[in-house]
Amino acid sequence: MLDVCLLGTGGMMPIPKRFLTALMVRYNGSTCLIDCGEGTQVAMREKGWSPKPIDVICITHTHGDHVSGIGGLLLSMGNSDRKEPVTIIGPKGVKRVITSLCVIAPELPFELKFIELSEKEESFELYGYTLTAFRVKHSVVCYSYSIEVKREGKFNLEAAQKLPIPRENWGRLQRGETVVVDGVTYTPDLVMGEPRRGLKVTYCTDTRPVPAIATHAKDADLFICEGMYGDWEMIKRAKDKMHMNMYEAATIAAQANPKQLWFTHFSPSLFRPEQYQKEAQKIFPRAYVVKDGTSIDLLFDDEEDKERDE
Amino acid sequence: MLDVCLLGTGGMMPIPKRFLTALMVRYNGSTCLIDCGEGTQVAMREKGWSPKPIDVICITHTHGDHVSGIGGLLLSMGNSDRKEPVTIIGPKGVKRVITSLCVIAPELPFELKFIELSEKEESFELYGYTLTAFRVKHSVVCYSYSIEVKREGKFNLEAAQKLPIPRENWGRLQRGETVVVDGVTYTPDLVMGEPRRGLKVTYCTDTRPVPAIATHAKDADLFICEGMYGDWEMIKRAKDKMHMNMYEAATIAAQANPKQLWFTHFSPSLFRPEQYQKEAQKIFPRAYVVKDGTSIDLLFDDEEDKERDE
Repeated sequence: MLDVCLLGTGGMMPIPKRFLTALMVRYNGSTCLIDCGEGTQVAMREKGWSPKPIDVICITHTHGDHVSGIGGLLLSMGNSDRKEPVTIIGPKGVKRVITSLCVIAPELPFELKFIELSEKEESFELYGYTLTAFRVKHSVVCYSYSIEVKREGKFNLEAAQKLPIPRENWGRLQRGETVVVDGVTYTPDLVMGEPRRGLKVTYCTDTRPVPAIATHAKDADLFICEGMYGDWEMIKRAKDKMHMNMYEAATIAAQANPKQLWFTHFSPSLFRPEQYQKEAQKIFPRAYVVKDGTSIDLLFDDEEDKERDE
Repeated sequence: MLDVCLLGTGGMMPIPKRFLTALMVRYNGSTCLIDCGEGTQVAMREKGWSPKPIDVICITHTHGDHVSGIGGLLLSMGNSDRKEPVTIIGPKGVKRVITSLCVIAPELPFELKFIELSEKEESFELYGYTLTAFRVKHSVVCYSYSIEVKREGKFNLEAAQKLPIPRENWGRLQRGETVVVDGVTYTPDLVMGEPRRGLKVTYCTDTRPVPAIATHAKDADLFICEGMYGDWEMIKRAKDKMHMNMYEAATIAAQANPKQLWFTHFSPSLFRPEQYQKEAQKIFPRAYVVKDGTSIDLLFDDEEDKERDE
């Protein structure tokens, strides 16, 4: 199960009742946070999710609304007695910016490990999931992220029973190990079915539409994408400032076919983003304007039904 | 009239429904902000007060909960098209810390002017009021601030009429200028009564009790003071961390005799600070636990009645 919460839906500046956009993903006791603008730690507390287990913080880009809350967040993590290192991933320069913001957190009780991205696309195996960063197109270098939990095939009991090896080797085969018994090599595929559909969340802001987005969001369980404006009149501004409106995001979703699309990074000028949902759904029917703090438990296909909890 | 708003009442970290402590004071079209932790700009917006006219920002000390919101605030001021310089006053080192936090605001359309305090006490004449910084006693160098609007004496029409000078000189005398007519010097005191009671607000956090506080808060219209804890059991922690509880603050108020005392900088562990108000009022009857965003219009003695607007 992948626990996902869109902590806030705001762009540019935090405003009353709308936190800055940030995504919190929990998997197997480890938390990954994407973006951390001013007030993110408050949004987290409002949701009731602890900042302590945050092992990874991904930064899309170093504009203030995506990083300004990191000093306060790390301080609070320090106060919660965290000792384990925290990995911070972001575009080149992220270390300089975050180190600078951490002038108020000079004595953290844990280490910060930085990974600066330089390729168009980079993947990392972390805490049981695969994190993929891919470059998008903003006024500064900016990355979007997919978090993917892969799932092995089903264990084939009958096939295992037919193998001339003691039962205690089954577990190793199931974990992907190769086993040698009496000089004969047995590989996992002998007892394991084809890999099954896993879980994927793709988070994308701030950018103009580029083909990489649909490629990476392909068949995602949840695609969270910037929809900064709802009025087509704002398209010139969106293009100038290298942002997207909801219809551009929905068009990407129509290509990627995720199970759901949630919009985020609303302009402070957008008072009622929900009024544009219907129009966006004409392009992609499963497009939703959700509220700050909306969360979902993503489950594997044969687990219980997914629920959106607002 | 001095317009005062206690934007938040929280200490250490911002939490849902409690912003970090910060004071906003408006006088004659100019705004002074004291402290600017994470979320201060949101508290300001919630109150409906604009950040644009902030000419002066005073920082008590450079702990995160008092400065971490400054990058975002300055960015928003830039977005609101402010062009005039902003003066930032604080202890030695404040320039380094704030410059570091402003890594996210590299292209502000206005200049930042820094004044680093080094004396025990320093006063500045700014935008029609006197700002006095005085050193208090925290784990790092920390200042408290008084904002005072002085008020000249009443103009004595009869006395002016008796002077053998043309009427057009009265205005200059009233403005405090000396006038020479036919070789004779006339000084303002000839037409002006004794200076009248002005207005004073004193803001004090984070500190152990020291004599300077009562001296500076003496007869203030409003004294806002840290009351981090309500339980006497927390006194050891307050002493260790160099903070004050509500009763220590009330004891200072009993010496200083302000018209009102408002507590601020509540510990995140303090869920219902108002439960301690009665006990504190035994020490100083006009002590109040107010809510975030409480404001008051302080008026001169002969202006209308003061009102507290929660």
